[in-house]
This record gives sequence, structure tokens and C-alpha cells, in this order.
Amino acid sequence: MKIAFAQLNYHIGNLESNSAKIIDAIERSKKQSADLVIFSELSLCGYSPHDLLEHQDFIDKCKDYTSIIAKHTQNIGVIIGVPTLNPNPKGKNLYNSAVFIADGKIQETFNKTLLPTYDIFDEYRHFEPNETFKLLEYKGKRIAVTICEDLWDEQRTYGNFSKEMLYKNSPLEHLSKMNPDFVINISASPYSYNQASNRKDILINNAKKYSLPIIYVNQTGANTDLIFDGGSLVINKHGETVFEGNYFKEDFAIIKSDEISTSETIKCTERNKYADIYNALVLGIRDYFYKSGFKKAVLGLSGGVDSALTLAIAVGALCAENVTAILMPSAYSSSHSIDDAIDMAQRCKIDHHTISIEESRLRFEETMSSVFKGTKAGIAEENIQARLRGSILMAYYNKFGCILLNTSNKSEAAVGYSTLYGDMNGALYVLGDVYKTDVYKLCHYINKNIADIIPENTITKPPSAELRPDQKDNDSLPEYDILDKILFGYIEQMLPAAEIEKIVPDRETIDFVIKMVNRTEYKRYQSPPILRISSKSFGFGRRMPIVAKF
Amino acid sequence: MKIAFAQLNYHIGNLESNSAKIIDAIERSKKQSADLVIFSELSLCGYSPHDLLEHQDFIDKCKDYTSIIAKHTQNIGVIIGVPTLNPNPKGKNLYNSAVFIADGKIQETFNKTLLPTYDIFDEYRHFEPNETFKLLEYKGKRIAVTICEDLWDEQRTYGNFSKEMLYKNSPLEHLSKMNPDFVINISASPYSYNQASNRKDILINNAKKYSLPIIYVNQTGANTDLIFDGGSLVINKHGETVFEGNYFKEDFAIIKSDEISTSETIKCTERNKYADIYNALVLGIRDYFYKSGFKKAVLGLSGGVDSALTLAIAVGALCAENVTAILMPSAYSSSHSIDDAIDMAQRCKIDHHTISIEESRLRFEETMSSVFKGTKAGIAEENIQARLRGSILMAYYNKFGCILLNTSNKSEAAVGYSTLYGDMNGALYVLGDVYKTDVYKLCHYINKNIADIIPENTITKPPSAELRPDQKDNDSLPEYDILDKILFGYIEQMLPAAEIEKIVPDRETIDFVIKMVNRTEYKRYQSPPILRISSKSFGFGRRMPIVAKF
Repeated sequence: MKIAFAQLNYHIGNLESNSAKIIDAIERSKKQSADLVIFSELSLCGYSPHDLLEHQDFIDKCKDYTSIIAKHTQNIGVIIGVPTLNPNPKGKNLYNSAVFIADGKIQETFNKTLLPTYDIFDEYRHFEPNETFKLLEYKGKRIAVTICEDLWDEQRTYGNFSKEMLYKNSPLEHLSKMNPDFVINISASPYSYNQASNRKDILINNAKKYSLPIIYVNQTGANTDLIFDGGSLVINKHGETVFEGNYFKEDFAIIKSDEISTSETIKCTERNKYADIYNALVLGIRDYFYKSGFKKAVLGLSGGVDSALTLAIAVGALCAENVTAILMPSAYSSSHSIDDAIDMAQRCKIDHHTISIEESRLRFEETMSSVFKGTKAGIAEENIQARLRGSILMAYYNKFGCILLNTSNKSEAAVGYSTLYGDMNGALYVLGDVYKTDVYKLCHYINKNIADIIPENTITKPPSAELRPDQKDNDSLPEYDILDKILFGYIEQMLPAAEIEKIVPDRETIDFVIKMVNRTEYKRYQSPPILRISSKSFGFGRRMPIVAKF
Repeated sequence: MKIAFAQLNYHIGNLESNSAKIIDAIERSKKQSADLVIFSELSLCGYSPHDLLEHQDFIDKCKDYTSIIAKHTQNIGVIIGVPTLNPNPKGKNLYNSAVFIADGKIQETFNKTLLPTYDIFDEYRHFEPNETFKLLEYKGKRIAVTICEDLWDEQRTYGNFSKEMLYKNSPLEHLSKMNPDFVINISASPYSYNQASNRKDILINNAKKYSLPIIYVNQTGANTDLIFDGGSLVINKHGETVFEGNYFKEDFAIIKSDEISTSETIKCTERNKYADIYNALVLGIRDYFYKSGFKKAVLGLSGGVDSALTLAIAVGALCAENVTAILMPSAYSSSHSIDDAIDMAQRCKIDHHTISIEESRLRFEETMSSVFKGTKAGIAEENIQARLRGSILMAYYNKFGCILLNTSNKSEAAVGYSTLYGDMNGALYVLGDVYKTDVYKLCHYINKNIADIIPENTITKPPSAELRPDQKDNDSLPEYDILDKILFGYIEQMLPAAEIEKIVPDRETIDFVIKMVNRTEYKRYQSPPILRISSKSFGFGRRMPIVAKF
């Protein structure tokens, strides 16, 4: 059997565009005499449609477009991912389904059994879990059709408090007893920098455990915060890889099911953490713009390392001619900041404007003087600067339709070292999941491997918000290498303070940092969507109470 | 058996304070010779702790405080709600439990069976559903202990596309067969203006169906967006009410289980929609401040109806001496706006300041002139005004520690008729779940029933954002009575456009409004938390993709 797999980039809710892509790939598969072409999880509607699934007309439209696709299935079998109605009067409205279409109609429907609800996942919100198992019999082959998490009955753990077996059921346990020839897994597995290897381990372990080949089809592209990295795989029954798809871009290939066991095995590509993060963020920006119908971006360029890195990634995603930087110096800006920012803009060959906030700041402080008189300058005056800058950038966006990219990082987001409605502004929080220590590593990666565009001085000087004379980040925060270790322990690993102390032996600093994180939930609640690159990003995957004491 | 029930106000994560309250109520129950005292769902940790449940030290602390409470259970039985560990190696880490404590230790644990995941609920994210059933046998009584949703196996529907039976299991079906004497239901049932009657119906229907008395203990108080309205109930086996607890405040009462069937039945209090919404919003503000450790609020007062209503509610919640209003006129402000705002501030007897944005606005526009020159004034210039106002209010917050209350409404939030980082600013979005047409009704309710403080002119004049000369809301939006009907159909009822057309026979306007709602998800993503008073509030209970096309 010749099997085509289509690793495509889908747009949530855009059934016209998604179905057109699917039909294109079906036609291409036919031309190459494929018997079967496989698309990924919820490929017709994109992942995740979230509460669009509660709208009847959305579900109706999914059904209509499935019928349109079905018209192209003469002489070929097609597997797409789509929400389908649960006909049972009890239980949730929908199933997360893989439908097998051939000869113009749906021949079989396979529903997802294991519905993740951890981290960014919410599948049990809308879908009823499958409880009955069957194989797809097609052209003499017996095929176990599974959907993403269905193979993850034994989980990698999240933090030290989570379980290896989140589910009571194991789809492959049931399906393997029916003697399938191979397993298909259609997936929507979002990228995080440790996910590709986790995923590979899961597939290899399952292939070996059940002695079955696995054909795994993931998707690529970004939908707001979630970035899908592709990397589809074919694993033989010994757990060896015989095919690996592209990462961070679409792919299409044909394999022969009978040759999986005899195919030459390959060594999977070595993943480079920073190359992958760079590619993920580039894709994240690019798809945000493309899928929202925007082309141009604006950002504030301070001369510091965060905005320089954001700019470098934005240029990688959108090209220099579509990115504008605005320098907004004040009386507290050092001359090297302005020089470094101009240097960076010139190296990137982008348009830049310098708009001093000094006069607006003085006028604004004068405006406040009737209520502020007699008070000491402090955080209010510092934040006024950040908010004027934020307002300048938004004015530029409103005037010219250039989407504002946020330029701060995860360490700052974690401890609230940022101004709400100021430097927290933006449609997309590009580095919101990148710790400061990784910001530096990404800069080095880009300078070495992409283009040497980030000024040395920007990378080496001590970080400062420059909101008062001689301010340095480490006046208010621990050094970033310490801070980031504590944050990683608390946020990604969810360790208690006593456990973090084994990594950073300074309980006072740990308690200070944890308190800062907990106290600034209210700020992060209002932050822009963050491009997720880690196993625990702020936003939808980390749901914390705001008014809470812990 | 004498049963005390304690309808208390809990603070998420604040185990010290919650356990102290619980112990107080236990001691009070003992003094009144109660045999059993009942607290509500997750009473020890507050509802909902969300992802705090993923932190081992949080769960450990819940266990520790349960032990502290247990020390007070000599000669009394106590039922509290608390997360407990799932000892099974498979399945989620935790159960949502009702633990029965007596004689110094946990005697029995009852786990929640039906775990809601719709709307604002996320329980399946952390909890494993119970699958085994037993009764509590205590002092000769056989008691069915259930937790909130456990009685909701037959749901009221949400929108026209949802199901009546979301679950495959029915706890009372199992428990009723074991011949209990009565049912206890501990609950964390958040307020929405139709919830009290839904809840009563569910309890009455269950009592009748199984011919069993039900003792229902809810909680009160607000935790950020969610407001718990109390209204605990005792229903006899004929479905008649014999006791009703306070609404929107704590309550404590004792009933005799043997007398439920012979007790005089009462007529439940008639709920007044606007009285309840007013009380809910007052409680929402009050608890946000109290539980965050703040006392004082600031808001922008425009002379319009939304900010006047927000102020009236804030004064109801925090008292006049803790609320400051800031008037921020520009060249486009009408004289009646300023007069009406001053009138409102004076009627409320609150401090107010007038800070003109005019000079800052001119200076800011001058600042932008190098990049704006040659362009036509438009949305950028309008938003500058809103952002300067937002920055003034935040500067006031930063200087004086007065929390900023947002003053816009649900109709505006729905269609994005608001400025991000401008009038969308605030720690709490007081009217974010109140449609404009209900804003007027609430004003009338307050003037008639609380205090006649909202100026007639504020209520009767046509709504305007006053960001350009002679601007009126209905220049860009349909009239609010039309708009709100469409929004209610689309948001609360999730109706397709064709169905909404049966209510508002104007398809063009409907399509325009739906498009506006869908296109402005990105704005609402960054909005402050909204006090939830409806069955479908923006925020955590309505999860929509941002970059999507539908």
C-alpha cells in the first residue's frame, strides 16, 4: 500500500483554505498513485478551535466541507481530522474524530480515546472519549487508526508531582489485540523545546512494546500562541526510524507500508535547542501576521538585548522592509543605548524613527502635578515613561496598521518587572516564553548562524530598564542566572521552595522570587498572547487564580 | 440529628484564614449541640484553586490544615471540601473530595463524580472522577454525600446546541438505591442571574425524583471574576423548601434532620434580577479589594452612564471615602459631561480631581508629528486621548495605591468599542458582563432602591465616547437595544445568524455585529478580569481562538 502523508499548516476556522489545501494534497497523492493519504488531527478546522466547537453552525460547516472533500476521494482513501457529532443522547456533544473517506463518502469514523486536559489542552471540554475499538480494513491491510494523545497513555511527567499514567485506558492495548498491520497516528502536537524528543520516545516505545510500525502525521504552522513543528515520523516495529518529516514547514511524502520493515533506517536529525526556538518564533510571528491578514510590524528598540533579539526574529519572519523600529529615548537613556539601537536598525536594514518622549514626559508630569505635588518621584514617574512609549507604539500601529510586537522576556513576565499598558503592550509577546539567559543564547545563535546583526555591545552591557538614572535590573532582581534557575524550578517543574533550594542554595531569594511570581498574576492576566516554546508557558497553559494567597 | 450549615466566604489558597473560619463555625456548632456541621465544596482552599492544584506543597498544605481542623472534631462530625490524593497509580492526581471528620480524624472520604468542564469550569483538568458509591453512616442516619455537579446529571442547556445529559453517570441513581435518609450536597455554585432558579429547579427535581430530602450548602464571596451567591437550601422529599440561606453574605443555621419532613415549608424569596446583579457586583468589588489587601479605588468619571454606574457600585462596595474619581476632559468633552460628572461625584460625596488631557494631547500629537505629518486625523488621534486618560489613572494608582476600576460595559467589550491600554485599563472590569441596556436598568434600580445618586441627565443623554466633535455611539454601532439582542443571541445563546434573524430581522446588522465580535478577540484577550453575572461572560468561561477565521 502506498501511503502519502501531508504535513500541512492549517488556519483555525478557515475551512475554505484548509479544505483547499487538503484537496490539493489529495490530488497530488492521486497523481503519485497513492492508495491512502493522511492528514493530521482536526486538520479541517485547525487546532484548537476551542469554543467555536460550541457553535452549531461551525459544526455544520465542518460537515459541509467534509462532504466537499469527499467528492475528491474516487480511487483513493483519505484520513482527515474533524469534529463529529456524538449520536448518543448522553455525554458531550462531539467526538474528536479521524474520518476515513473513500469513494465519495465517509466509510469509517475513529474517535479519540485519550483527551488531554493538562497544560494548554482542553479537549475534555468539548469531546466525549471513545470507548470502543475497531480497525480500519482497507485494501487488505488492517490498520489501527489513533489520534495524537491516544499513544500517550504513559506520560512523560510534568513537574515532579504529576503522574506517569494519567489515563485508565490504553487504546493500543485494545487495538494491538486485533492484529493490525500498522498504526496510524494523526496528531496536533505543539512544539516545545523538549517535545520533539519526548514524542519520538513515545512512538519508539509504543512501536517496540506492541511490535507494530507507526505512521505518525503531525501538522506545522502557528495558531496564535501554539506553534506546531511538524516532524512527522515513520517508525518500524523495532522502534527504528525510517522516515522523518520537515520541521517547522509543510511536507509531503509517500511511503510504502510493505516496505517499512525492510526500509533503510535513518538517524533522526539532531535537534539544536536554539535553532529550533529561533525557527519556532519565526514561524510564530509569520503565521500570526499571515493568518490575521497583516504584513507589517512595529516595535520599540531600546538598545537592549530583548528588543534587539525580537527585531532579529521579526526580520527573519517578515523581511526587513516590513519591520519598523521606533527609538524612544528619555533623559535617562544612556548615549550607548541610542547608538546601539541605531546600529541594530542599520544592520537589519529596517526603517527606524527616533521619537523622544522627553517633552511629553515633562508635560505629562506637569499635568499630574496638581495631584502629585509634594510626593516623591518613584514608580509612578517611572511607569509614565513606559506608558508614553507604549502609547507612541500603539499610535503608530493605529495610524499605519503595523502590528506591535512586545519586546520583553519570560523572566520579566514572571516577576512582573514590566509596566502594564507600557512595555507590556503588543499583539504578540514574542519572547514571553524565553528566559533572559536564553535570550543571550539565542542572540549568539543568530549572530553565528543566521546573520551577525546583534551589536556586541547590546549583548555584553548590563541589563537596565533606564527609567531612572543609573538603574540596573539587578538593583531590584537577583542576577538573571540565579533568577532563571529559580523560575524554571517553580514554573516549569512546579517544585516546592525546599526542592529549589537544592539547586539554588539561597532560600531568602527563592521565597522573594516565588512571592513576586504569585503577586504578579494580575499583570500576566492582561499580557498579550505568548509564543509558547517551553513545556510551561504563561497564558492558557498556566491557569492561576489572581486574587489568592499562597 | 442536629445539622449546622456554614455558608462562608473563602479566600483561594488562604488556608490559614479559611481554616480559622471553619474552626470558628465548628466551635459555634458545638455550642449549639449540633451533631454535624457542613461546609461547602473545596471550602478549605477556596474555589477554584486552578493550577495551584499542580503544586505538591499546596496539596501538602491542604492535608496539614485538614489535620488542624480535625483536632476540633471531638463530639461533632464535620464535612469539609478539600482536594485529596488519588492513591490509584492510574488517573489524575487528585480527587475533589468531601471529607467527613470526627473524633480527631478523617473517617470517610467521598469523591466528586461529575466534573464540569464547560464554561468557567475546568475540574477534569485536575480531578479524577469518582466511580464507586457508598453512604455515610453516622449516628443512626444513612447519608448520601454529594458534591455540587453530582446532582446536575440532567443539565439545563447552554445555548441551543448543548445537551441535557452531559454525563453518562448519575450519582443519585446509585446512591438512592442504598436507601439513604437524606442527601447532602456541598457546593461551589457561582452566581449568574439565572443560576439561582436553575439551581432550585435541579434540587427540587432531584428531591422529588428520588423522594429524598436534600441539604444543599453553597458558599458566598467573590474570587476575582467568580461571585458565589450563597442561597443554601433545604428541600424536603416532596420538593418543597423548608430553609433558604442568605444571598450574597455568610450564613449559619441549624436544622434537625428528623424534622425536615414535618417542618413548615417556606416560599423562597423572589429574586429581583437587578437587585441581585447590584449585590453581586458590590460583593465582587469588595472581595477583590479585601482579598488583595487594598482599600481604595480610583476611576475615570466621564459624565456618561457607564462610569456613573461603576462609581455607584464602587461606593456601595467600598464606601465614599475610599473612592476617588478623576475627570479628564479634552477639547471634545461637552460642558454637560463635566457638569454631570461633577454632579455625580458630589452626590456620591467622593473626592474628585479634574485633570485636563488637552495639553498632554497637543504635546503628544506634536511628538508624533515627525511620523504623522501629512496623514489625516483619525482613530490614532482618538485613541491617543483614551490612552492618555488610561495613563493618568494608572499614574494615580501607582502613586497612591488606589486600584483602578474599569468603567466600560459588555456591549462595548463585545464589539471592541474601546481602546486597548486606554479605557480598557483596570484591575477589575466591573461592568464587563453587563450589557448597555442593563446598565440603564441598573441605574434606575440604584436610584430607586439604594440612593438617588445618578444624575437624570447622565441616564437620558445619548451615549458618546466624545473622542471627536459631536461623536455618538450610534455613528459606528447599531442602537443598543438592537445590538444587545444580537449579542445575547450570539454570545449567551450561541445561535447561528439565521436564528438571530428571527429575533432581529436585519441580517446585515447581525453579520456586521458577529464579525465585530469575532474580530476583536485579540482585545478581550488583554482585558481585565470581568465580574461574571451572566451564563456566558467574556474571560475564562468563553475561550475563543484569536487568530482564526470564521
